[in-house]
Amino acid sequence: AQSSVTLYGKVDLGVGKAAGTKDKTVMDGSGSRVGLKGSEDLGGGMKALFGFEHRFNPDTGTQNGAAFWQGYSTVGIGGAFGTVNLGRQYTSAFSLAQNVFDPFGGDSEGRLRALSLTPSTRLTTDAATAAATGAAKIRTQDSIRYDGTFAGLKIAADIAEGTATTKRPYSLAAQYAVGPVMVAASYENPGAAKDNLTTAGVAYTFGPAKLAAAMSTGKDADGEKIRGYLLGATVNVGPAGQVLAGYAQLKEGTATPAKKASVGYRHNLSKRTQLYADFSRVNEPALSLNASTGRNTSEKNAYDFGVLHAF
Amino acid sequence: AQSSVTLYGKVDLGVGKAAGTKDKTVMDGSGSRVGLKGSEDLGGGMKALFGFEHRFNPDTGTQNGAAFWQGYSTVGIGGAFGTVNLGRQYTSAFSLAQNVFDPFGGDSEGRLRALSLTPSTRLTTDAATAAATGAAKIRTQDSIRYDGTFAGLKIAADIAEGTATTKRPYSLAAQYAVGPVMVAASYENPGAAKDNLTTAGVAYTFGPAKLAAAMSTGKDADGEKIRGYLLGATVNVGPAGQVLAGYAQLKEGTATPAKKASVGYRHNLSKRTQLYADFSRVNEPALSLNASTGRNTSEKNAYDFGVLHAF
Amino acid sequence: AQSSVTLYGKVDLGVGKAAGTKDKTVMDGSGSRVGLKGSEDLGGGMKALFGFEHRFNPDTGTQNGAAFWQGYSTVGIGGAFGTVNLGRQYTSAFSLAQNVFDPFGGDSEGRLRALSLTPSTRLTTDAATAAATGAAKIRTQDSIRYDGTFAGLKIAADIAEGTATTKRPYSLAAQYAVGPVMVAASYENPGAAKDNLTTAGVAYTFGPAKLAAAMSTGKDADGEKIRGYLLGATVNVGPAGQVLAGYAQLKEGTATPAKKASVGYRHNLSKRTQLYADFSRVNEPALSLNASTGRNTSEKNAYDFGVLHAF
Repeated sequence: AQSSVTLYGKVDLGVGKAAGTKDKTVMDGSGSRVGLKGSEDLGGGMKALFGFEHRFNPDTGTQNGAAFWQGYSTVGIGGAFGTVNLGRQYTSAFSLAQNVFDPFGGDSEGRLRALSLTPSTRLTTDAATAAATGAAKIRTQDSIRYDGTFAGLKIAADIAEGTATTKRPYSLAAQYAVGPVMVAASYENPGAAKDNLTTAGVAYTFGPAKLAAAMSTGKDADGEKIRGYLLGATVNVGPAGQVLAGYAQLKEGTATPAKKASVGYRHNLSKRTQLYADFSRVNEPALSLNASTGRNTSEKNAYDFGVLHAF
Repeated sequence: AQSSVTLYGKVDLGVGKAAGTKDKTVMDGSGSRVGLKGSEDLGGGMKALFGFEHRFNPDTGTQNGAAFWQGYSTVGIGGAFGTVNLGRQYTSAFSLAQNVFDPFGGDSEGRLRALSLTPSTRLTTDAATAAATGAAKIRTQDSIRYDGTFAGLKIAADIAEGTATTKRPYSLAAQYAVGPVMVAASYENPGAAKDNLTTAGVAYTFGPAKLAAAMSTGKDADGEKIRGYLLGATVNVGPAGQVLAGYAQLKEGTATPAKKASVGYRHNLSKRTQLYADFSRVNEPALSLNASTGRNTSEKNAYDFGVLHAF
Repeated sequence: AQSSVTLYGKVDLGVGKAAGTKDKTVMDGSGSRVGLKGSEDLGGGMKALFGFEHRFNPDTGTQNGAAFWQGYSTVGIGGAFGTVNLGRQYTSAFSLAQNVFDPFGGDSEGRLRALSLTPSTRLTTDAATAAATGAAKIRTQDSIRYDGTFAGLKIAADIAEGTATTKRPYSLAAQYAVGPVMVAASYENPGAAKDNLTTAGVAYTFGPAKLAAAMSTGKDADGEKIRGYLLGATVNVGPAGQVLAGYAQLKEGTATPAKKASVGYRHNLSKRTQLYADFSRVNEPALSLNASTGRNTSEKNAYDFGVLHAF
């Protein structure tokens, strides 16, 4: 049977400043990684699939995340029916709906997703922390996930193991594109006592521009209402450039909402190498949901300038 | 000089239930791994050899074992005289005798080896734990190992470093195949105060079937007698199937023996992708050697169903 | 754009004895590693660069160092102006001056560099520990480094992030070769209160021999004077052999200097496989800078015999 194994990865580093601190640092803008993935044609339209992906911090050389294969680690079978994958993997809600509207893709100091569509129970600009504690899990472990496409409608569902104190987390998602319009929606139950998250959005492409609007609404683990929304625009500028802009807002319970506005520029030196620059302004009042220890709320500006190389 | 470097691995995941618990989980049946190995022709019949192998849990994405290169990490020289390897590696006893009779190869919920030929001082169905604490070490670190083949007789010997409280562990092993019969035997001294393990077995192949019988006998670190035995059968069924069956028993000191019977089926979708299913029944009376904290001895059934992909 | 990605590495193991202990052990002589590196031609003389390198101990299979990618992890841009790399990387002082004079290259029991040109505040024969605590950092994280070559003169400069208690570490270095003569010099400020290190040296090649003389002088973190020097010789013997010899001395404050003399032999079985043997004598009086806990100062001899395979 024909088969392929691919070694792939990305290294991303720049200099910049995060909101909430005065420190200017060398920083990884988009989750540097290295992974192996492959597929094997089993005949009769069937195929075997596998992959596992390490995440790391190239500024220090250290592992990123609690698991060495933090990105994902799966094995699965595909066919005309769709694909079934087992292992550590993204939730369906994340892949099909929560992660498809942020112009910044959840990356760089411009990222808007964590402050709108994939909120944590406490506001944070760090997507990794949001994944660990928030109302959106992003990834689950010991998970079974199904993906299928029917007449252009992509659907997916996943369920994972619970713990001694939580139920089995699961999510459902769908995405549909027709002409210039793409719509997506998802429902996620992260498994804690009261939390759940419903996400819906629409993107519209015309000429060199793409506009996106989406929202997430639900409850955190304590039953407090969460509501986040995102507006985004992506405009191709010339053959190699892209201007990104967007606004995100997140409100939890009765706290003052946190707000973030971002602009960014991407310049492709090649298909594999990109320069990027971003500027964001984050407004988190003292009574906002974000009361992270040691965070300097008067430091509202964030920016970065970096280089990204994929292989 | 001609040389080769190979990137290889395996990802294995299924759903199942272990004995001693009611929990049904996603589980790795056979030690998922990724490694590099290579050899270089040095001329004159000599060659240089190296390899190192990472083990991981794809259900969670985490490292499996205390060492990142848990599988092995060696460099060595080979020639007409045989091969000498240095590093972290399997014991000779494990490679040539302890690991060649279990129809399940020590893998999946059907595995019989850990409850018979490679016992720990406390019964466990987990081969990794057995390796760490048992009368059979499986792997040693800071080890020197010799392998040679003379007129079809394979022999091997290894010795490793001791610690402040243990002597140098060593093992000796031999394996011989003539026509349909294979016999193997080993002696292992794990290095603690009183422990040692002698293993011997025979396998007989006729038509599509292979039968195996083997036993291990010795003493644990406290000087209590250990006796384990294994009976196994492997039958090829059609061009792609294999039925596995076996029985294992392990007795330590005066405790009631622990017993395990397993059946399994392997179906090769290709040379590299396999579906598997297993059912086991484990009988561990309250006064048996297995008094693991929290183990539910009334949960005697174990089973799994999974997919394995090698690359 | 043309591009390349290379998977490379080295596994090194031998048997030997370190100074300061009676224990004979299996040991890694030269920093076993595996890494990925690549470059992409961006056109117009520009290129993108990346790499990351894991270090491990093949005698035990464990990670070597606190960071998984302990060797380095960088991404950068190169062009006619030189190269700029960001990430975890060697200091300029180390690459161009501190590491180019030791005939043993800082490797094996013969290594001289750590006891002369890259001293720690306490004497140690372990280069890794020296890197962590010494007046020479060897590597820094969150670093920006520039390298350029102008009419044969190589120059480099790097600066990294400080911590709450230290300033930004930086270093400057230059190296120049003309005919048989190579000279190199560097200045390093490791960032602690009072430490700094200036290194200078010269190497001369005639026929099969290369002679080197170099010194480092500066202050440790407490402001005590450090002075180390190194004399080295490398002589090619036949088509595949090399004899190494050298002497190193290190004095800190008013303590008695520590001294080390080494001889070694390298035999290349191929371009990628080498056998090595070394003998050293280390003299560290009780009042010397080396007062490491548990070190047996009467054990002055060190030796090793091993095999190294690169891929």
